[in-house]
Amino acid sequence: MTTPRRRGRPGHDLDAVLAAAVRLFNTRGYDATSMFDVAEALGITKSTLYHHVSGKEQLLSMAVDRAVDGLFEAAANIQDHQGPATVRLQELVRSSVLVLAERLEFVTLLLRVRGNTQVEQHALARRREFDTLVTDLVKQAQSEGGIRADVDPATAARLLFGMVNSLVEWYRPERGRPDALAATVVRLAFDGLRTINAKNDQGVEQEQ
Amino acid sequence: MTTPRRRGRPGHDLDAVLAAAVRLFNTRGYDATSMFDVAEALGITKSTLYHHVSGKEQLLSMAVDRAVDGLFEAAANIQDHQGPATVRLQELVRSSVLVLAERLEFVTLLLRVRGNTQVEQHALARRREFDTLVTDLVKQAQSEGGIRADVDPATAARLLFGMVNSLVEWYRPERGRPDALAATVVRLAFDGLRTINAKNDQGVEQEQ
Repeated sequence: MTTPRRRGRPGHDLDAVLAAAVRLFNTRGYDATSMFDVAEALGITKSTLYHHVSGKEQLLSMAVDRAVDGLFEAAANIQDHQGPATVRLQELVRSSVLVLAERLEFVTLLLRVRGNTQVEQHALARRREFDTLVTDLVKQAQSEGGIRADVDPATAARLLFGMVNSLVEWYRPERGRPDALAATVVRLAFDGLRTINAKNDQGVEQEQ
Repeated sequence: MTTPRRRGRPGHDLDAVLAAAVRLFNTRGYDATSMFDVAEALGITKSTLYHHVSGKEQLLSMAVDRAVDGLFEAAANIQDHQGPATVRLQELVRSSVLVLAERLEFVTLLLRVRGNTQVEQHALARRREFDTLVTDLVKQAQSEGGIRADVDPATAARLLFGMVNSLVEWYRPERGRPDALAATVVRLAFDGLRTINAKNDQGVEQEQ
């Protein structure tokens, strides 16, 4: 593209800027990273960098949005499913794993946000909103009888996404295809580690 | 106790020092916390603080040891169980949740360690050792037929402890008794979210 690009407009260059910034934020920490560091990592001058973004806070804001937008898009997509809530929850878990695998550095940053600035407060608020959405889906699946009623829905939602979010700690693309991993996460979360034979042996006890 | 205490000797005072240091490390970050900050939080002078510990690195070392020792004690305890590997794994998950709930701040610190110093490298090595131990237990349970064979044991171990470790993000003592939470984690991890009726409906499909 040879057309002039406005500041902050999404595109190839901005993607490269964002990727470099997020990598630095994740390795050195947001506070310890300067705009000069970001420019240096890209091999450009600070004034060229300011042509793309207004400052460090805008980089943080765009980066956490990229993570959180991915999760909300996944949530919006399942609204169209006509099936039971359990199937929608399963689909949300599956596509969240894909979002994490694809936007790993962005989600890593999002999960480390502690709420010191307005941008971080906003990111935390959207995370809470997503948690509530998952909890509501668990409640609905419980009322439909698809998900066990003997666990607190908020706790189940936290444990479920604790499992999903752990990907940022250990997932590497060379460890296998994201869709295979997503299937494994869904299998473990919904059907558990135990084999079905072992489950049936103690079915009555477990249902109590 | 009125007997003189040697530097670094475990006891009530050292516990208070450690607790204050870990709280600061977790909120401000290890690098951003000085020995002066720790002394100030305790309302003592820096020289009194140095009577207890040799420096910041010793505080970090003792703090991560407290977390990792708890997990290895849990692992040592299950060695005595005569039952199948699945039961031992279940017991390890249960007691790990109790360790996390009891030593929450210490485990939070452990899980944030990134390996910049020798102490951190050592902590990471012990975490990897624990992961290997869990993976081996999953493999054994799979060969005994207690745990589904269609998941990679290392992935299963990571997802399982991803769920357990997520407690540092959201567990608060007022959210319920640790043993009830440990039971919930075991239930979800081994038997899954789905109700048994829903499982049996699709049992054949799931086993393929």
